[in-house]
Amino acid sequence: VSKDKYGDTPVLGSTDYKPLKNKRYGLYEVSELTDGTEVLVRCEVATARSQSAKLAFLNFSDDLDSIQAVVAASESLSRQMVKFAANIPTESVVDVVGLAKDVKDPIKSATISNKELHITQLWVVSRAVPQAPIQVADVEGALPGDNTGAAQQDETGRALVGLATRLDNRVLDLRSKLNHAIFEVRDGVKSAFIDFLKENRFKSIDTPKLLGSPSEGGANVFEVGYYKRKAYLAQSPQFYKQMLISSRRKRVMEIGPVFRAEDSNTSRHLSEYTSMDLEMEFIDDYLEVVNLIRNLMHHILSTLQSKYSRETEHVRKVYPSESFKLPPNAADIPIVEFEEGCKWLNEKGIETDAGDDINAQQERSLGDIVREKFNTDVYILNGYPHTARAFYTFPRGGDLSAKYSNSFDFMMRGQEVLSGAQRIHNYEMLCKKMRGMEPPMDPESAGFKDYVDAFKYGCPPHGGGAFGLERVVCNWLALPNVRMAAFFPRDPSRVTP
Amino acid sequence: VSKDKYGDTPVLGSTDYKPLKNKRYGLYEVSELTDGTEVLVRCEVATARSQSAKLAFLNFSDDLDSIQAVVAASESLSRQMVKFAANIPTESVVDVVGLAKDVKDPIKSATISNKELHITQLWVVSRAVPQAPIQVADVEGALPGDNTGAAQQDETGRALVGLATRLDNRVLDLRSKLNHAIFEVRDGVKSAFIDFLKENRFKSIDTPKLLGSPSEGGANVFEVGYYKRKAYLAQSPQFYKQMLISSRRKRVMEIGPVFRAEDSNTSRHLSEYTSMDLEMEFIDDYLEVVNLIRNLMHHILSTLQSKYSRETEHVRKVYPSESFKLPPNAADIPIVEFEEGCKWLNEKGIETDAGDDINAQQERSLGDIVREKFNTDVYILNGYPHTARAFYTFPRGGDLSAKYSNSFDFMMRGQEVLSGAQRIHNYEMLCKKMRGMEPPMDPESAGFKDYVDAFKYGCPPHGGGAFGLERVVCNWLALPNVRMAAFFPRDPSRVTP
Repeated sequence: VSKDKYGDTPVLGSTDYKPLKNKRYGLYEVSELTDGTEVLVRCEVATARSQSAKLAFLNFSDDLDSIQAVVAASESLSRQMVKFAANIPTESVVDVVGLAKDVKDPIKSATISNKELHITQLWVVSRAVPQAPIQVADVEGALPGDNTGAAQQDETGRALVGLATRLDNRVLDLRSKLNHAIFEVRDGVKSAFIDFLKENRFKSIDTPKLLGSPSEGGANVFEVGYYKRKAYLAQSPQFYKQMLISSRRKRVMEIGPVFRAEDSNTSRHLSEYTSMDLEMEFIDDYLEVVNLIRNLMHHILSTLQSKYSRETEHVRKVYPSESFKLPPNAADIPIVEFEEGCKWLNEKGIETDAGDDINAQQERSLGDIVREKFNTDVYILNGYPHTARAFYTFPRGGDLSAKYSNSFDFMMRGQEVLSGAQRIHNYEMLCKKMRGMEPPMDPESAGFKDYVDAFKYGCPPHGGGAFGLERVVCNWLALPNVRMAAFFPRDPSRVTP
Repeated sequence: VSKDKYGDTPVLGSTDYKPLKNKRYGLYEVSELTDGTEVLVRCEVATARSQSAKLAFLNFSDDLDSIQAVVAASESLSRQMVKFAANIPTESVVDVVGLAKDVKDPIKSATISNKELHITQLWVVSRAVPQAPIQVADVEGALPGDNTGAAQQDETGRALVGLATRLDNRVLDLRSKLNHAIFEVRDGVKSAFIDFLKENRFKSIDTPKLLGSPSEGGANVFEVGYYKRKAYLAQSPQFYKQMLISSRRKRVMEIGPVFRAEDSNTSRHLSEYTSMDLEMEFIDDYLEVVNLIRNLMHHILSTLQSKYSRETEHVRKVYPSESFKLPPNAADIPIVEFEEGCKWLNEKGIETDAGDDINAQQERSLGDIVREKFNTDVYILNGYPHTARAFYTFPRGGDLSAKYSNSFDFMMRGQEVLSGAQRIHNYEMLCKKMRGMEPPMDPESAGFKDYVDAFKYGCPPHGGGAFGLERVVCNWLALPNVRMAAFFPRDPSRVTP
């Protein structure tokens, strides 16, 4: 009786593939439908199990949604079809026709709790090989604490899959609802960044990633064979975005990859990551730049708060965290002077020298203090010691012997997510600064000349900063490892898949 | 009398810098002001010349705008100030206070033709070194025909600066109004691409640029020293965007750099360029993908037509071209079958074999024919020979021995700007296809395994394409060389600045 109601379709695109004529729905739409509406959805099989020869239960999944489905033998539905359904390998892509029926008791095993699909047709569009190297259900949970990659189980017997195994099988891993939520947030951060800056007349730029010289000192740079010579991968768009300011682009932004050959395997570093850069002219004071970025940061975080609460809550169930404390207005995000911050740390018995940078541990402690004082998880640390910043950073008051500089970091949950500064736009000051570095830098050398020359022919005062996209995502969601916020992370021991 | 009315400001950011209190304007706003309004603008000096000891003329520039200004000695303005003004090196950045006065006869030497600035204060914010390697005014015109880089002049005695010299001095070159116009258009193309795809539920992705193996065959790939091993720069996001489709991202987009180690120095190729990629699931037919991209293409071109006419006209004055013929609706952009296109070429006496690809010259001829037939500068060539496309291209009707494939190019002014296709989403078909290639490809080899495995565990049917951003800009503006549409172009002989 069920001939022409189920089976494997021919490969879609083949001459003998026949489209179904029923009305298509997105799975997310089903919960709102009238009881008994017939739907056709394309989704994936999360689970399939036979209850008896006459009854099978399936769980279908799509994005953040899932639904329970039953296929029951009847006068119009054969036992063969029930058997077929129960035996579809998980992860297969299917076209399902069924009636969306109301249920009495909320269904706990699916996100759509008020409806159940009563299957009338079932077509496998793309059949999965039965034995997948990892089960998607097994990577919905948190990473095991020791992260050895060895097989482990939680108290319920659920396999605990380590990070390395997840990343080795990233295509399957990314199918988890956990990862759907994480990467929706990532998309949201990028969109909010672009939207705000476009609204504020920033123009998009694309700076070269292949450079003729290892700029910015030459440490931690990847070398490339470039035809008959060497080239180097850009560690940041810094020089080029400033050169474009000098070429009279008033406000520029770029989202793109940057490459860091640091041989460190910490949970905070990637060898390739996505940098969200901006650079802008200012008129009288670099605090114009700080204020614009503060507005931008507030826009990003309030967008996450208002539009990504479902995703945030999903991740929070897996990685518990306190809800992010965001001040109501951008102007309420505190700007803390570095010197003052160090004093607060000293008061808590944490030793720092206000002439030196602070380390990651001290950063976290200062984050706690600021949270206590201002009830915020985001703040700005302003006026870093001159010696702690890159050579192109503008010294306080324009004085090269000044202790502090016109530089700042933006912090989320006590971790730096953006680093920025006023840059030296004056040619003579820049040359003098470089020659006075320890060891001295030569403004005429191949790695610097094009950059330094950009300031010879008139350049407006300017400043800017760069977000590490993965860090913003990580700190918003309180993820334990920055790799979890990159689609295909790269580190010293990983360059695949 | 003019003490405190002119001079060089201290380096902006220095303690002794004093902000001006006057109301600031953008230069673009000045033409609309009431006669005699006092303005303060920050802009650059395009020209400065003394007429007499009592009178000097300057031309100030900002973005696409320019204005004439006079500084005249009077009871309240000293001859010293006139002399100071006349001697400011071009390209210096200045703060100008002046009265925006109506003029009787339109001023031809400035884009703001109805107003002249009568200077009352003049401050040099960033002074240019007097002798610049190229004059911005000299790169406002077209490239000299022979492009040798040797010094040449046009009939009026104006220096003609070749492409190499322009690119060697790119920061100055990019200051030209010509380049302001070109890169505004570039920004417009990106914005239109992102806006349309976001509106259509595409999610932004960032795929890795550092790969563990030279994928896609290994030709034309840059090799990178990656810690203690080798890595390779991505030639496209192709494999990864498909892997993300398999990881259940339904619609993905990416704008990012791609790297091609082709040793060819043509006007159409770059070693690093910006690819605008998209990939999407479809339900029943890959023409769903073609239609979406057709709508996207139409959105981009109609945005350029409606919002970038000033920039387009500016470039057209330098590089004359016919106005772009864009059909009124997306659905009017013709889809021409490859086989049919070859027939049309044959009818014009141009020999082609419909089983082979067509070359760039034939492409242009076909563009002419299509223009004649359909009155359009944009069209789609659909159904390329299977042998002319990458191995992952879906064969017509799902038949590996078919002559044609479900693939297409989008053409602008007879040149390809996007290449796309349905991809093989079926694991067995893909393996069979690869093993049957000449020479055979091994689905189990390091360069392919992660990619091919993505199709093992269920993958929806999908397709997509990629625009070369620089090509879209180039063909819209009819520029003679693709390098002109990249901020800092890279080719086999250029990796600086």
